[in-house]
Amino acid sequence: MEITRAFANYVAEMTYERIPEPVRKIARRGLIDTIGCAVAGSIEPAARIASKLAREDGGRPAATVLAPADGADLKLPPQAAAMVNAIAGHALDYDDVNTVGHPSVPVVFAALASVEDEGGDGRDLLTAYVTGVEVETKAMRAFGESHYLLGWHSTSTQGVLGAAAAAARAYRLDAEETARAFGIAASQAAGLRRNFGTMTKPFHPGHAAWSGITAVRLARAGFTADPAILESPLGYFAVYAAGPYDPEKAVANMEGWTLERPGLSVKKYPCCYCTHASIDAALSIAKRFDLRPADIASIRAELSPFFLSPLIHHRPKTGLEGKFSLEYALAAAFIDRKVVLATFTDEMVRRPEARTLLEKVTPAKHDVAVEEGTRATFARLTVERKDGGKIIEEVAEPRGTAANPLSDEEIADKFNDCFSFARRPEKAAAQALEMLWKVEQLQRIDRLTALLG
Amino acid sequence: MEITRAFANYVAEMTYERIPEPVRKIARRGLIDTIGCAVAGSIEPAARIASKLAREDGGRPAATVLAPADGADLKLPPQAAAMVNAIAGHALDYDDVNTVGHPSVPVVFAALASVEDEGGDGRDLLTAYVTGVEVETKAMRAFGESHYLLGWHSTSTQGVLGAAAAAARAYRLDAEETARAFGIAASQAAGLRRNFGTMTKPFHPGHAAWSGITAVRLARAGFTADPAILESPLGYFAVYAAGPYDPEKAVANMEGWTLERPGLSVKKYPCCYCTHASIDAALSIAKRFDLRPADIASIRAELSPFFLSPLIHHRPKTGLEGKFSLEYALAAAFIDRKVVLATFTDEMVRRPEARTLLEKVTPAKHDVAVEEGTRATFARLTVERKDGGKIIEEVAEPRGTAANPLSDEEIADKFNDCFSFARRPEKAAAQALEMLWKVEQLQRIDRLTALLG
Repeated sequence: MEITRAFANYVAEMTYERIPEPVRKIARRGLIDTIGCAVAGSIEPAARIASKLAREDGGRPAATVLAPADGADLKLPPQAAAMVNAIAGHALDYDDVNTVGHPSVPVVFAALASVEDEGGDGRDLLTAYVTGVEVETKAMRAFGESHYLLGWHSTSTQGVLGAAAAAARAYRLDAEETARAFGIAASQAAGLRRNFGTMTKPFHPGHAAWSGITAVRLARAGFTADPAILESPLGYFAVYAAGPYDPEKAVANMEGWTLERPGLSVKKYPCCYCTHASIDAALSIAKRFDLRPADIASIRAELSPFFLSPLIHHRPKTGLEGKFSLEYALAAAFIDRKVVLATFTDEMVRRPEARTLLEKVTPAKHDVAVEEGTRATFARLTVERKDGGKIIEEVAEPRGTAANPLSDEEIADKFNDCFSFARRPEKAAAQALEMLWKVEQLQRIDRLTALLG
Repeated sequence: MEITRAFANYVAEMTYERIPEPVRKIARRGLIDTIGCAVAGSIEPAARIASKLAREDGGRPAATVLAPADGADLKLPPQAAAMVNAIAGHALDYDDVNTVGHPSVPVVFAALASVEDEGGDGRDLLTAYVTGVEVETKAMRAFGESHYLLGWHSTSTQGVLGAAAAAARAYRLDAEETARAFGIAASQAAGLRRNFGTMTKPFHPGHAAWSGITAVRLARAGFTADPAILESPLGYFAVYAAGPYDPEKAVANMEGWTLERPGLSVKKYPCCYCTHASIDAALSIAKRFDLRPADIASIRAELSPFFLSPLIHHRPKTGLEGKFSLEYALAAAFIDRKVVLATFTDEMVRRPEARTLLEKVTPAKHDVAVEEGTRATFARLTVERKDGGKIIEEVAEPRGTAANPLSDEEIADKFNDCFSFARRPEKAAAQALEMLWKVEQLQRIDRLTALLG
């Protein structure tokens, strides 16, 4: 089976018209969510450093950097703009999740920069984004768990294929050029999970977006590469799986839309996805029983072993540690009755009220059999009240998964919170949001980027 | 053992004064050879496409592109210049070889661009180059054969560490910054051997040089990364070895100089290194016996199985195929009594005299026990004359290996041939060569790059 070629044909033949309306709706929401995350993340240190260096180097002003740290407009060559934007988009770990890892961030910013460079419209942006997510997520099916388990950060190692697919669509490559672009992209796939917890984690989708656009521009200009890179011996699947893999699975069901199934898990809370079901349970309990922190004797939070594993900060001292602390996330949920970007500042994590409450939280492994997929998200919260009462709440599907999606209003609230976090004017948020809900009506993408830059 | 830290200290503490004169001499010759290869390679399609796109994107004019295809001066941000130059340096597969693969090309151009950006001098260039080659080659010791065998092109996957080391030295990072730079660099290590035989092969060291400089500039600006990326679980060695590996071997003998042992194998001929011992034997026979093509009944060339494996083009039709054809290389050696860049044009490969002679060549596996290292290079040539005579010539160490090095005059001849191939003026070659033989006397590296650009 010519698998690379099948993906190349898929990209070259993709049109806006082929995308069903339910998938377009998911994509519009995904664009809003991912762009919002980048606006918020643009003030984080990783994005500030990256945009400062990119501004120093400059170059052809083809694509817009979203909200660069130092305020002024910044346009750059497309691969450079895409890199900075993707770093910003992942800096807060607030962007969406699926079987690839974080699927949207490398793709959205490769698409946005390529479409702006090409003078494209809103349909081009949406189509490029959908194409990229479909390619990276379908390709991921070839791997068992061996890819991620070996130490690869699939957000970038798979994301580079998605970024290349999005850029290939944006620059309107034919199938033969797209196959070569995959060849060049595969030779740039990188990103070690060992760098989690550092700025190099958000650098990964930045590098993927950079590499995907670079691959596409080289291929379009005549650069050659192996046109069967995915399935060949010594090719991408063989080298990056490092264990059993099945290339045929990648091209099974090419007509199905992974954006619908398994879908995107949009993050409602700006912290590790593994805390989300527990936060849902806590917010539900706090509101239903009007429970005050002073009423609480103890909190037991049972999670799957897989979801417990990244929650390593039991007594966090910084905002960033707080994002990977089940104890702090639950304390904040009961104290504030909301979990938003402002929850994870150093000051908020260190406030005495939170320090007191988080001492009462005990994480534990639950005994619910974990099946494939979302059941790993199951959480059970048991709150003992000082008055002797006990409240148990179970959440199987946290808010934001494809099966339990956020409302459009919640997506909009998150977008506005992102702008507010970055101290961007409310009016810009409102205008950008209106444009993005009707992205297909945008005649030129630079009308949108002018608002965001 | 803190292995990443040991390498970071090595880089931060390296000075020109610490490098012994015999190593400096090897490095001066390596600089000349690698820069010559890039001047010649700059007219190849891969370099032409890369420099055209880089010129379109432009940016801060900090570092010089060597002989860009369209003739005019081109200065770019350092990582962009390094990428184009390294692609040019590897485009003809004429650059040097050691246990890493092609060790110099990613490092020389990361060093040259960084030192030019930093306003450094000739000693900075030589020191950065030596540091980079030492780091990548020492680090490679941790791997058994599993790294290359799995499908990685070590020229780039190891070269990115060498490029980062060279740039870290050029920008004078301290040890803590250098360790973080290795963390960022390791998350960009990529390059699949599957892309051999396409333009993406020379793209690999280009990407490595780009990534190494990018890592260093981010680390210098405060970007964070895992500071023990090499040796940690889920770290670089664990993920890229994909088989048994020994991190301790990487830091064994940190005081020894790999530039001396195993040394560099400088290519005397612009074709696959596996043809070199056979070409040496052919030139020796042709000259000693004044043997004409018309005198030859048959040629049997016995090589190790490992060296036979890449020589896949038995009836080549293009110059590029001719580089991987033992038959054509031997035919050309007997006909022309030299093997130079002009040997591998499409016209030369297709000339009738060569087509006739290469039909008389038979490649075969030899029965010499192959030990580790250079004995794999052993070749035996058996020529049967039409008059019934038989000549046998054996070559164990082809010209250009550390054990059988080229003379300074041969290095200079190759450099001049490279300039001539790219139709660059003889005078520029002579001036550049004089500067490079005395590279330590250069006060500013841009006096050299102005000649080469």
